[in-house]
Amino acid sequence: MSTTDPMRTNGERLWSRLMDMAQVAPTAAGGSNRQALSDDDAAGRALFASWAEAAGCELSTDGVGNLFARRPGRNPDAAPLMMGSHLDTQPTGGRFDGVYGVLAGLEVVETLNDNGIETDSPVEVAVWTNEEGSRFSRSMMGSGVWAGVMELEEVRSITDEKGITVGEELDRLDWAGPLEFGRPVGHYLELHIEQGPILEGSATEIGVVTGVQGLRWFTIKLEGFPAHAGPTPMDGRKDPSRALAEILSAIYSVAGDQAPWARATTAQFRSVPVSPNTVPESITFSLDLRHPDREVLDGMEQAVRDAIAAACETHQIGFSIALDNDSAPITFDGDCVASVQQSVDALGYSHERMVSGAGHDACYVAKLAPTSMIFIPCADGLSHNEAESIEPDEATRGADVLLGAALRLLHV
Amino acid sequence: MSTTDPMRTNGERLWSRLMDMAQVAPTAAGGSNRQALSDDDAAGRALFASWAEAAGCELSTDGVGNLFARRPGRNPDAAPLMMGSHLDTQPTGGRFDGVYGVLAGLEVVETLNDNGIETDSPVEVAVWTNEEGSRFSRSMMGSGVWAGVMELEEVRSITDEKGITVGEELDRLDWAGPLEFGRPVGHYLELHIEQGPILEGSATEIGVVTGVQGLRWFTIKLEGFPAHAGPTPMDGRKDPSRALAEILSAIYSVAGDQAPWARATTAQFRSVPVSPNTVPESITFSLDLRHPDREVLDGMEQAVRDAIAAACETHQIGFSIALDNDSAPITFDGDCVASVQQSVDALGYSHERMVSGAGHDACYVAKLAPTSMIFIPCADGLSHNEAESIEPDEATRGADVLLGAALRLLHV
Repeated sequence: MSTTDPMRTNGERLWSRLMDMAQVAPTAAGGSNRQALSDDDAAGRALFASWAEAAGCELSTDGVGNLFARRPGRNPDAAPLMMGSHLDTQPTGGRFDGVYGVLAGLEVVETLNDNGIETDSPVEVAVWTNEEGSRFSRSMMGSGVWAGVMELEEVRSITDEKGITVGEELDRLDWAGPLEFGRPVGHYLELHIEQGPILEGSATEIGVVTGVQGLRWFTIKLEGFPAHAGPTPMDGRKDPSRALAEILSAIYSVAGDQAPWARATTAQFRSVPVSPNTVPESITFSLDLRHPDREVLDGMEQAVRDAIAAACETHQIGFSIALDNDSAPITFDGDCVASVQQSVDALGYSHERMVSGAGHDACYVAKLAPTSMIFIPCADGLSHNEAESIEPDEATRGADVLLGAALRLLHV
Repeated sequence: MSTTDPMRTNGERLWSRLMDMAQVAPTAAGGSNRQALSDDDAAGRALFASWAEAAGCELSTDGVGNLFARRPGRNPDAAPLMMGSHLDTQPTGGRFDGVYGVLAGLEVVETLNDNGIETDSPVEVAVWTNEEGSRFSRSMMGSGVWAGVMELEEVRSITDEKGITVGEELDRLDWAGPLEFGRPVGHYLELHIEQGPILEGSATEIGVVTGVQGLRWFTIKLEGFPAHAGPTPMDGRKDPSRALAEILSAIYSVAGDQAPWARATTAQFRSVPVSPNTVPESITFSLDLRHPDREVLDGMEQAVRDAIAAACETHQIGFSIALDNDSAPITFDGDCVASVQQSVDALGYSHERMVSGAGHDACYVAKLAPTSMIFIPCADGLSHNEAESIEPDEATRGADVLLGAALRLLHV
């Protein structure tokens, strides 16, 4: 195909399907509530399946319920080009997070149909099980098991608040199928809303996602000595609040030094005792540090550790720092990124090369298959929120870019 | 009597009684657990009552169970000189907090007996009900009702964790008696361990307490905007953690500016959502501000309010400040303080004039009667702790000062 006349998706059809899917378990505030492995999640997948079957796809699942809609290629043994995301939502989730990537993948398949295009490799649309991790507390569960990062048996035993296991729900819904985990995939492309404000802020149409930020989660505990708020002079205290002030300042300074990609988030603050008139015995909080470059992230971590040690020495405070999560930065596949870039260039959409700050199924798929992502803006950067919003034109542009990248990777 | 030869208490008897009382509901770690209105509290009071009756005192109670042991004077209509404190303890309390003031009062009575001294006014030892407020959550309850600060009926309806009311326990223990609340008291003296490190730090034997710090409790809520820790750039956040860092620094700076008597304590930190990868929607914490001078306290409060407003404007954070408790500074009665001072001078003990940072029954009694307090050091300033500790010599010195002050106020 010519780069001067790129093929386009049917934006009206895509938007209509997004709106139809939003009718499955809608929330009063205009969002969606299809929590993983619920009847609502199943209803969403059934709707998708009906469309995919109508588009000539073969449906099959693997042991953790990941659903694959396959448009056959000329060579049934060739590794498929895969596109996808997830259909499950947060309890008060939006209409586009995940859903958009799945339905845009289907839109690419239908555009291939509309244009009578045969491909050598099969084309698949993946619906990964339980990306959100809200009902069953392990996010990106389906892609994690698929990529061998999680064990199926371990995942099946995870319970929701009512004590129901993933395994029980997989059996009840009859979602588990024979497809093997980690089978060969030629390339994987995931189109997603940005879930951040960068593209909107710069009025940019497409994010060409080159990788995913490395992430480290810490639990930091500052240990003082409880003392009566009245009789104890200020200079005789071992008050973790005083160390906290300096540590928070240092953390935000460290993040500022590595702008624009560094992220530092402190949260989950709690202190004991729960008494207004006792110097806290301890204050605990979480720190989420992110950067796309491992060496920079190492430096940020060390700077934070040094600042904690210094503040605690000044105020005679004990401390502990636990590393709860360490997710290495991901650099996406060069061919995938290049195909996305060429697709954007051919379409003439404004774009920005960027890293994803959030985790996606693509992070796990990338462990086994050449992978990259495409972002479109979302209103106010809002996500995991019923007010999550995109415009039809934005949705169409992203699907067009996905189509162009797919065609390039399929050598059409 | 001559100031060159002051009368002394019997320190061995006092110490022996302190140790005997510590045998009532002792804890494994060497403290006491006589929570208010429990059988253990009643056992402690019964032991005191047996000693007081043996010393010739008449016992009576008022409607909230405050117990008064009265050594008659020549003039039965004269307002009594009163000494006292409380016998109830924290669940893991020490052996001296409150107990020392009660038993030293009894020791003064016995020293008057030993020396055959008759007084014009009666001398009373008060045991105030539920000073600690740990089982029934209202501290200084007995003195509060006595002074008219709290309503008896309201107090009787307060429940413990098991749903048992103060009223039920008062009835069960048969503690309520006919004495009227707020009856005339000539002078009230309360001897107490310091519950802070000042006297120990300066190796001073006696604290001449001239008043009680004013205290204000605030709940401060910083309201940001929840955003994903990954995709959201640092400069696009409304992150209450950043405001918190500046506010805490400012609070401790304000307290430092009003050293040595200013106190600032931040505690009860909590944040929502409880998620490590979301910029907090809100962070809440408590602030306890204290100073003995109302105008200084006003200035401290205003400086903190200004700092909160400034930090929240910088970081585009909403905030609210609730005043939960406002206890005005107390200046003790000049005659009482002078009598304590003269007593210390006559005894030649090292001393320091100071304000109490903590609340005591004396705070409420002072609303109706001329009042002051005497402090002795305690090890490491520890209190509300089973490791609370004083030396026999320290206990004797405090009782001697109490005796001397009482004799002066009794015009003996």
